[in-house]
Amino acid sequence: QKSFRIVVLQGDGIGPEVVSQAVRVLEVVSAAAVDIDLKLETHDFGGCAIDKTGEPLPPSTLKACQEADAILMGSIGGPKWGVDAKVRPEPGLLALRKSLGLYANIRPANFASDSLLAHSPLKASVAQGVDMIIVRELIGGVYFGKRKEQGVSPDEDVAWDLMPYSVSEVQRITRVAAQIAVAANPPLPIHSVDKANVLASSRLWRKVATQTLKEEYPQLTLYHQFVDSAAMFIVSDPKKLNGVILTENLFGDILSDEASVIPGSLGLLPSASLAGAPSIPSSPSFKPTSGLYEPIHGSAPDIAGQGIANPIGTILSAAMLLRYSLGLEKQAKAVEDAVRKVLDDEAAGGYQLRTKDLGGTTTTKEMGDKVVEVL
Amino acid sequence: QKSFRIVVLQGDGIGPEVVSQAVRVLEVVSAAAVDIDLKLETHDFGGCAIDKTGEPLPPSTLKACQEADAILMGSIGGPKWGVDAKVRPEPGLLALRKSLGLYANIRPANFASDSLLAHSPLKASVAQGVDMIIVRELIGGVYFGKRKEQGVSPDEDVAWDLMPYSVSEVQRITRVAAQIAVAANPPLPIHSVDKANVLASSRLWRKVATQTLKEEYPQLTLYHQFVDSAAMFIVSDPKKLNGVILTENLFGDILSDEASVIPGSLGLLPSASLAGAPSIPSSPSFKPTSGLYEPIHGSAPDIAGQGIANPIGTILSAAMLLRYSLGLEKQAKAVEDAVRKVLDDEAAGGYQLRTKDLGGTTTTKEMGDKVVEVL
Ligand SMILES: CC(C)[C@H](C(=O)O)[C@@H](O)C(=O)O
Ligand SMILES: CC(C)[C@H](C(=O)O)[C@@H](O)C(=O)O
Repeated sequence: QKSFRIVVLQGDGIGPEVVSQAVRVLEVVSAAAVDIDLKLETHDFGGCAIDKTGEPLPPSTLKACQEADAILMGSIGGPKWGVDAKVRPEPGLLALRKSLGLYANIRPANFASDSLLAHSPLKASVAQGVDMIIVRELIGGVYFGKRKEQGVSPDEDVAWDLMPYSVSEVQRITRVAAQIAVAANPPLPIHSVDKANVLASSRLWRKVATQTLKEEYPQLTLYHQFVDSAAMFIVSDPKKLNGVILTENLFGDILSDEASVIPGSLGLLPSASLAGAPSIPSSPSFKPTSGLYEPIHGSAPDIAGQGIANPIGTILSAAMLLRYSLGLEKQAKAVEDAVRKVLDDEAAGGYQLRTKDLGGTTTTKEMGDKVVEVL
Repeated sequence: QKSFRIVVLQGDGIGPEVVSQAVRVLEVVSAAAVDIDLKLETHDFGGCAIDKTGEPLPPSTLKACQEADAILMGSIGGPKWGVDAKVRPEPGLLALRKSLGLYANIRPANFASDSLLAHSPLKASVAQGVDMIIVRELIGGVYFGKRKEQGVSPDEDVAWDLMPYSVSEVQRITRVAAQIAVAANPPLPIHSVDKANVLASSRLWRKVATQTLKEEYPQLTLYHQFVDSAAMFIVSDPKKLNGVILTENLFGDILSDEASVIPGSLGLLPSASLAGAPSIPSSPSFKPTSGLYEPIHGSAPDIAGQGIANPIGTILSAAMLLRYSLGLEKQAKAVEDAVRKVLDDEAAGGYQLRTKDLGGTTTTKEMGDKVVEVL
């Protein structure tokens, strides 16, 4: 029997509501297989941890996360702990990523069901067939470089942030992108995004990504894009970037958010942040790695407590958790198939359930009920 | 009689073709007013300058630009002078911006004519009414901070770029945004974009922008957006950012390119990069300032020499030149009105001309002919 320890961080705002539906899904997976045992434990993190303990990432939470096989997380933050607050949730998230070595952020931007095309802000002809996987470096670059705040004396009127990248940092994230690309059949192209016409760190990025792929994955096709052009194509012709988008921390933050609104609702999309060396889920040599899984939407305090939030992004995050950290590819696929069926329109044999973000009246719990039922 | 010296940098690829149509427009303006004399002179810059002189910004070109009242420029660059080339055009552009102190890049993203809505990648309901003016700081931040290339010895495997901002840099660009906002009736809201939840330079940005507006323009409404959210809204609900978007160099590069594809074709949009202190064109105390004007599209080497490029972005850049650097507001408006009439569909009393980028067959020259005729 395989036993896994999963830490659940419920988050703020709608976090607890959506996370609890994903937890139900994991419990069903655990109950359905006699040889799999998922042990879930909840810990405080983010705004709610600040309120209880004065800090966003209490040592006990960090310890539990370090010992866990995987972490399922709801979004943190809210106006209560805004940019002007003395203690804010974001540094807790950045510290968690850094402490766990979660260097690879993986965010698909695709349509969970074709029936959602109508909800895209893009014309159907532009949006149909969009299928990108954004691989963002998560613990390097300007997020973790040295920085200097503006001083208090009037002559100290400069603030700065350092944007560094090392060869090994770029190598390892390039390998993650490559593993995802070769896992597909046929292999996906890789679009590496940088600003090599201006930045030294981008010139290193471009050189190392090119070398690493040439030496280790010569079968893959590599394209380079400047970040400004990539930002353009995501709107004007996103299919041009179908495949794997490989980029650094800040560019990945911007581009993944930009791309995430194409599939109709932020509420639909999952993400994974991985630590260990990458490997292909479908290959016999696959080695699961610890990771943190969260929907890409925010904590949406304005609709918290109403039971109307879309739990699909969190449920699909749980599917990624099963795939990458537990090595349960079959179960991961089953969850994704169940989600598709719940979203597909009736003509396609689905239940066509829609939460409020998609113009419907299905509640958070009803959505979870149906996914569990189909599973 | 007012005499103005205008330097024309034709650029590479389609540059000379589109610039020549804008030059015709300026010549018509000059000929039409007895008291205005525009003296145009052409200089080498960019790729064509590299080919002739070995450098993108020859000293004679820089000198002419420094002495000019305004510069009209076609896009530079092309595969011939790519990232791997020994001498590249981009450093020439960055050096020109810095030498002339062009700290304020102004890029409208709106529909030159409602008839172009159908060409937007966004659904008409999302795109209709989009009217943003992006004010990008152009000679600070990570573009001009210190940087270190990757070393040649194996232990020197880090490259970095510094992203600095000073109080005075943020103050002056904030004032440009404010001047544009108050020039409208009613005044426009300002959306300041930063990443203050992570970056020290962004925290300075947010603080100084807030203070400057509060003290000097208390009548204006100021919103703050994180750059990742702004990238999202530009796709999902761009009207939310209608008004003036105020942001730093790198974020402005990304967001202005992202927004520029909304109005249907890159070929339609102009830009201005200004030096001096800002003031309101319509006010009696208006003081023109030197500036560089260019369409936002690239040099499009693939269609160069075919006479099919869209000259509208360059012609509208010439209109901005008339407004901001020569103080000829009436003439600027006349050019903009002529462009609208040429683009408007027949039901709206226009000529509905369309170059290839908009699915039509009008040539570059025919487009220029019609604008000149209407003028
Ligand atoms: C909250 C913030 C620090 C974070 C980031 O920028 O990484 C968020 O935007 C994200 O993308 O997870
Ligand atoms: C060519 C490049 C250096 C430039 C920039 O990034 O500023 C361009 O993208 C622009 O926006 O004018």
